[in-house]
Amino acid sequence: MTRVVIIGGGAAGASAAARARRLDPSAEIVMIEAGEMITHAPCGIPYAVSGVVPDYKSLMTYTPEEFEKERNIKVLIRTRAVDVDPDKRTVTIVRGDREEKLQWDKLIVAAGARPLVPKIPGVDLAGVLTLRLPDDVPMLKAELSNASTVGIVGGGYIGVEMAESLLTLGKKVLLFEMFNRVLPTALDDDMAAVVADEMKKRGVELHLGEKVVELKGSGGRVAEVVTEAGSYKVDKVVLAVGVRPDVDLAVKAGAKLGETGAVEVNEYMETSRPDVYAAGDVAEKTHKLTGKKVWIPLAPSANKEGQVAGGNAVKGRVLRFPGVVGTAVTKFFDLYIARTGLSEFEAQQAGLKYDKAVIKARTKAQYYPGYAQVQVKMLAEQGTGRILGVQVVGWDHVAASYADIAAVAIERGMTIEDLFFADLGYSPPTAPVWHPLIVAARVLSRGKL
Amino acid sequence: MTRVVIIGGGAAGASAAARARRLDPSAEIVMIEAGEMITHAPCGIPYAVSGVVPDYKSLMTYTPEEFEKERNIKVLIRTRAVDVDPDKRTVTIVRGDREEKLQWDKLIVAAGARPLVPKIPGVDLAGVLTLRLPDDVPMLKAELSNASTVGIVGGGYIGVEMAESLLTLGKKVLLFEMFNRVLPTALDDDMAAVVADEMKKRGVELHLGEKVVELKGSGGRVAEVVTEAGSYKVDKVVLAVGVRPDVDLAVKAGAKLGETGAVEVNEYMETSRPDVYAAGDVAEKTHKLTGKKVWIPLAPSANKEGQVAGGNAVKGRVLRFPGVVGTAVTKFFDLYIARTGLSEFEAQQAGLKYDKAVIKARTKAQYYPGYAQVQVKMLAEQGTGRILGVQVVGWDHVAASYADIAAVAIERGMTIEDLFFADLGYSPPTAPVWHPLIVAARVLSRGKL
Repeated sequence: MTRVVIIGGGAAGASAAARARRLDPSAEIVMIEAGEMITHAPCGIPYAVSGVVPDYKSLMTYTPEEFEKERNIKVLIRTRAVDVDPDKRTVTIVRGDREEKLQWDKLIVAAGARPLVPKIPGVDLAGVLTLRLPDDVPMLKAELSNASTVGIVGGGYIGVEMAESLLTLGKKVLLFEMFNRVLPTALDDDMAAVVADEMKKRGVELHLGEKVVELKGSGGRVAEVVTEAGSYKVDKVVLAVGVRPDVDLAVKAGAKLGETGAVEVNEYMETSRPDVYAAGDVAEKTHKLTGKKVWIPLAPSANKEGQVAGGNAVKGRVLRFPGVVGTAVTKFFDLYIARTGLSEFEAQQAGLKYDKAVIKARTKAQYYPGYAQVQVKMLAEQGTGRILGVQVVGWDHVAASYADIAAVAIERGMTIEDLFFADLGYSPPTAPVWHPLIVAARVLSRGKL
Repeated sequence: MTRVVIIGGGAAGASAAARARRLDPSAEIVMIEAGEMITHAPCGIPYAVSGVVPDYKSLMTYTPEEFEKERNIKVLIRTRAVDVDPDKRTVTIVRGDREEKLQWDKLIVAAGARPLVPKIPGVDLAGVLTLRLPDDVPMLKAELSNASTVGIVGGGYIGVEMAESLLTLGKKVLLFEMFNRVLPTALDDDMAAVVADEMKKRGVELHLGEKVVELKGSGGRVAEVVTEAGSYKVDKVVLAVGVRPDVDLAVKAGAKLGETGAVEVNEYMETSRPDVYAAGDVAEKTHKLTGKKVWIPLAPSANKEGQVAGGNAVKGRVLRFPGVVGTAVTKFFDLYIARTGLSEFEAQQAGLKYDKAVIKARTKAQYYPGYAQVQVKMLAEQGTGRILGVQVVGWDHVAASYADIAAVAIERGMTIEDLFFADLGYSPPTAPVWHPLIVAARVLSRGKL
């Protein structure tokens, strides 16, 4: 009987557990989770804080009890894994004040990511908040309840989503981003500018290109954000400067880290240490377009990586995780933002020469009422015409699916011409007869199409 | 100087003209159009009849004057092409009561399709209507204005769209379809049943599996629809039993017809007769998945075929039209309907063995408010796992884009496993973390994923 121990009950850990159980009814499977919830969706935290999602517990797909009863997976909640001995094949766990050791034949590290905390004075002040787990929602709501002005440090996905969340709660929002654009790792300048305009229009006080150097307190509580350019009174601060893989236990388990700083894995989700797997935000992924290792911590791939790790842990190399192409989606109120493939910066990093086009289009036939505006940016490799990346912003959620279409096109090596001739559907209420992606491909063809 | 004559000012004809002009500033280009509008969008007729699109003239993207002035394309509206002499290279046209001959070096036949009129008694009665061109909208509106009960013969795309249109106008609607399901060429039984339920719920009196055998009149005007099963009082009848390619002039030009009954063309949109091209609804297309010729008359491919024909007519084989995969979209009120690839019937016709899965899902994270239900059907080839077809129905327009994602996947030969691991985007307000297409692929894998 195989003993499988899984560190982490989030997307990757729970998928691994479920898959291991499905492929091996007799395995002993133990899942260790520091919080109270498993199969939890941290992506939903901004919406639970704003109240758009009324009950934060709905961010959990399954309860620990369901996992125990329906799948015979032992779930240890409120339990921290604190050490791993790869030679003796044990994990040391702490539950309350008790410490014990669990024996494993296969270890799956799905410890996720944790928020980065910038090394600046004042980050330890009360009222300085980070988002990690849905369990944090009640604390976040309580902390924010009597704040009227909130500073957000960081303009990435979480920063943008929390800006919406806080505006929904009626707060005054100041957002500080050291790069000169919002969503700096997701979008190029020209596309990010559309998002920034929308944020300003909705009332966010945007401080771009302004690095936060200190948080100042009053009576032990944060009261001021100090940047290189000025200082600003706030009641609370939300830190959203990024996340890093929570690799400590993987390292203790003897797994090598890759260049990205996350755990190095092969397509079977095996680490460098035999019988130790890693999956989800803790692990590197292969970028299908460049073949390079990247660290892109997102839930859809975490789920699939967990599934691969869980299946392989009990059955040995039955599944491969092929990697990602960098698809990501967010929104700011009615403005939907999606991207896939490479941005200009990423294409440059990868040493690729590219052409680019930015087009504006509508989401429906020009004569059909209720259309929304979208802006599409497309990059293609010079010479080959291979599509390298697509960024979309638009005032309709369908814009997000344009990135999905592009993601498949990019994964499958489509060129500008291939995409131009792709058989994308049309009806007046759902798309223009020339789909915005096809218009972008046409413009990018520089007169050839 | 090349003299290009184009028969037809719709999607294919106008695209051909525009492309020819772009590639050859000196060519003499003449476009012949029977109606008053060019670059017209017949797909918008049901919405112009219902008033959702207030002005039917907005179904025209460019006016003849714009084409003449901005592109130097001679546009002959209200002009019928009545004969072609392929040896003398002339087209005989009739304008008002004048007949004349136009000389051509290259002829592009983009004559489109015309509604099928069933050979049953009574189809010539007054009050029996067909839809062809946006020009018809004022007549259709006038005819329908004082009708209270309308019979629709045919439950394909036009039948379903006109049912919505007529309900919007407050009519009682009876729809007759000889097959036992609506959208019989688009959807399989299990998916069509969802559409039929919605139609009944909205008040359509559906008569499925009921062939219309006669229309009876009173004072020369239609008054009754007679089927094999009964007879029904109506004030007007809309015929929507399908369309056929308008091939007469192509045949006169010496072009061979293919097995589908439409004009046979190669990937350059060349017919069997040198210097005669065909594009749009008049022409066959290659199905990229089966490699077989099909006749699927839809605007997006018509536009691209026109572009290819126009470019090649002036520059010789500069572009290829690779074909289609059968993507099509419609809606009935809030229910969006899309399909791509092969249906079960089509897969059987092509001699392919397949597995299938039908799943229900939501359009957003399970905890996010405002999600819509979708149902996805997926077929994959036995043995290879290659995706063959996808059908989607759902109460959100994003459902239509699932077919676009699938269309690209099918064109690029993706298998169930490829699609399962595709990097489709996720955010709680825009998609579930397991995208409905990925769930369908997983279920179709029968436990492998």
